[in-house]
Amino acid sequence: MLQISHRGQQMPASPIRKLVPYADAAKKKGTTVYHLNIGQPDIETPQACLDAVKNCNIHVLEYSHSAGNESYRKKLVKYYAKNNIAITAEDIIISTGGSEAILFGFMACLDAGDEVIIPEPFYANYNGFAIEAGVKVVPIGSTIETGFALPPIADFEKAITAKTKAIVVCNPNNPTGYLYSAAEMETLKEIVIKHDLFLFADEAYREFCYEGTHTSAMHLKGAEQHVILMDTISKRYSACGGRIGAFITKNKTVLNAAMKFAQARLSPPFYAQVLGEAAVDLPDNYFDTTKAQYKLRRDTLVKRLNNIPGVFCPNPGGAFYAMASLPIDDCDKFCQWLLESFTHEGATLMLAPATGFYSTPGFGKKEVRIAYVLNVDAINKAMDCLEKALEIYPGNTQKK
Amino acid sequence: MLQISHRGQQMPASPIRKLVPYADAAKKKGTTVYHLNIGQPDIETPQACLDAVKNCNIHVLEYSHSAGNESYRKKLVKYYAKNNIAITAEDIIISTGGSEAILFGFMACLDAGDEVIIPEPFYANYNGFAIEAGVKVVPIGSTIETGFALPPIADFEKAITAKTKAIVVCNPNNPTGYLYSAAEMETLKEIVIKHDLFLFADEAYREFCYEGTHTSAMHLKGAEQHVILMDTISKRYSACGGRIGAFITKNKTVLNAAMKFAQARLSPPFYAQVLGEAAVDLPDNYFDTTKAQYKLRRDTLVKRLNNIPGVFCPNPGGAFYAMASLPIDDCDKFCQWLLESFTHEGATLMLAPATGFYSTPGFGKKEVRIAYVLNVDAINKAMDCLEKALEIYPGNTQKK
Repeated sequence: MLQISHRGQQMPASPIRKLVPYADAAKKKGTTVYHLNIGQPDIETPQACLDAVKNCNIHVLEYSHSAGNESYRKKLVKYYAKNNIAITAEDIIISTGGSEAILFGFMACLDAGDEVIIPEPFYANYNGFAIEAGVKVVPIGSTIETGFALPPIADFEKAITAKTKAIVVCNPNNPTGYLYSAAEMETLKEIVIKHDLFLFADEAYREFCYEGTHTSAMHLKGAEQHVILMDTISKRYSACGGRIGAFITKNKTVLNAAMKFAQARLSPPFYAQVLGEAAVDLPDNYFDTTKAQYKLRRDTLVKRLNNIPGVFCPNPGGAFYAMASLPIDDCDKFCQWLLESFTHEGATLMLAPATGFYSTPGFGKKEVRIAYVLNVDAINKAMDCLEKALEIYPGNTQKK
Repeated sequence: MLQISHRGQQMPASPIRKLVPYADAAKKKGTTVYHLNIGQPDIETPQACLDAVKNCNIHVLEYSHSAGNESYRKKLVKYYAKNNIAITAEDIIISTGGSEAILFGFMACLDAGDEVIIPEPFYANYNGFAIEAGVKVVPIGSTIETGFALPPIADFEKAITAKTKAIVVCNPNNPTGYLYSAAEMETLKEIVIKHDLFLFADEAYREFCYEGTHTSAMHLKGAEQHVILMDTISKRYSACGGRIGAFITKNKTVLNAAMKFAQARLSPPFYAQVLGEAAVDLPDNYFDTTKAQYKLRRDTLVKRLNNIPGVFCPNPGGAFYAMASLPIDDCDKFCQWLLESFTHEGATLMLAPATGFYSTPGFGKKEVRIAYVLNVDAINKAMDCLEKALEIYPGNTQKK
């Protein structure tokens, strides 16, 4: 009989999207669903970026260079310089979203059977790319009690084997919102240098830091050959659908290898490169408004959550996610129950069960990830729903 | 020491693009270079498609559905119906170019160590995706003498082992331009059913058939569970830079597996989906002009080639490629020499050495692939160059 591949079987369904049929059913019944489950910002894409696409007068929609349009890569050099990241256009491969940058990194640096260490909880799709590449993800635990700070160095050293080739760090973090400190980034640097590992740095949320400043992996002096930056414009400019990211490294051997994978898929999408190029010219204060908006939402969300009996939410320093522990038996059941069996004033909310962000079975069962991608009013209404829901949820562990 | 992966080392550089630095150097010296090396058509992208993007009024560039916009998938059903391919919107995953459809197919159906049979010469990037997936490509030879017809059934049966999971067929073929007959497609059907294999069908050039009609793998009755169509709008509408393709199968297990890989990369690019959707509404005679243009180019090219002493070019039935055998020692050397050491009236031409399309070492050394993507005048001038070049090329094997 025709069989699909083992990796096709092992591949996890998206933990964020698997509740979609229940949400669709709720909406069909007329229920308002507050979507706090997915990192799709409601922030408008800058008009100047959308206009750049509208004003693009081409006659033939040709392949771009496999590394992306040179004009865009040159512009990006300026963007990174503003972030104290000194690179040249030759250090950049424009990728199809941050997703493809992750895939290029895994493919170019890791072989089947190699191990990559990732502090958990982590962005669930790292698992998917690891399965595509035949790579084993070795999780080391960060916990909600510490706000998901970097695990101690001893935990990394315990996890490192002869097969360990890389560490992945997402900063600020998805799903935890944790912003790694300069000292923590220095710790990572020491580990990767001492053990000769690659450091894959996912910095999709670089601009969205609400406490302290962002330390890029590209700032780590002496680790230049180890660091691979996997970047994306998706969240930065609310341009998720464009599918434009970047694979950046000073390590020429890695870049040349990644370039061969880039050539195999011919080129990144043209139109969103035009949009991304225009984004570099946005005024320097462009992020101020967005950041202020996100900060306000975060403050509202965290305060509301911590006021609900039995709920704990550490204050996230960046990105637009918060992880909260709830007084519940099982987050997967609870999130489904919210969509199937609960309404408050005609509404309910959709959350991401945290289990999908842990690779250790059983971990995160009482946690949910909340993306604060809706306005303050919607967040308040969603929190009203959550508060009421926990009061009546049959699996509430605080109830007698 | 930090090491890249073995697959990063094994990954072939693009055989089509590796001569680019020599072409750039020639242009810097003021030489006109006729680019017949790459499948980038000069045909204009339909204005209605470009306008659809220009007129697209969005405020937030959101993620699409991971399977692509539903409106686009529904439209595509109509396009395929016109080609006697009966599918539903649920059989389609919109991919980022045909490239990603190939990757999804390899990932969902094949494991590391599995074997896939491909008649050679073949589209070089199949090799790249095979290396990404850890899959072994087993070539079986088609030859220039037969115009690159499907190899006899016995050759397939000889190549099939316990590890064989699939056959790839590109129809009409890149790089040979060969158009498989209905009888040949039936032969492939018998093989895949008898040996329980997947049939990956790359039909990027479906519309460009100059002799006879196109038989899609989707037309093969009884093979519905075996066939996976890997499609793209790149060549069809001269929209290579958009990066939109499609992964299509009636096999739900395969589709569901592919969907998980699609979810991991979140969504295909938005703008080019809008462009692709508009393309379905082009008038039914849209392809007539393009096809007539390509046929004229093909006729010009093939006639010119066969008039050059020692050159043989079988008449290709489809796509926009021709393979020619030349009286030369080594096509890689010759193609480089054309760019480095030759000009005729201030011009030279760039061809793709055929060695890159063969996976058997040493094969194709006297052959080149010629993409007839330039107008008739440019093709004539390029053939003038080729004729003169062969007269003086030191490695001409016909010379005394």
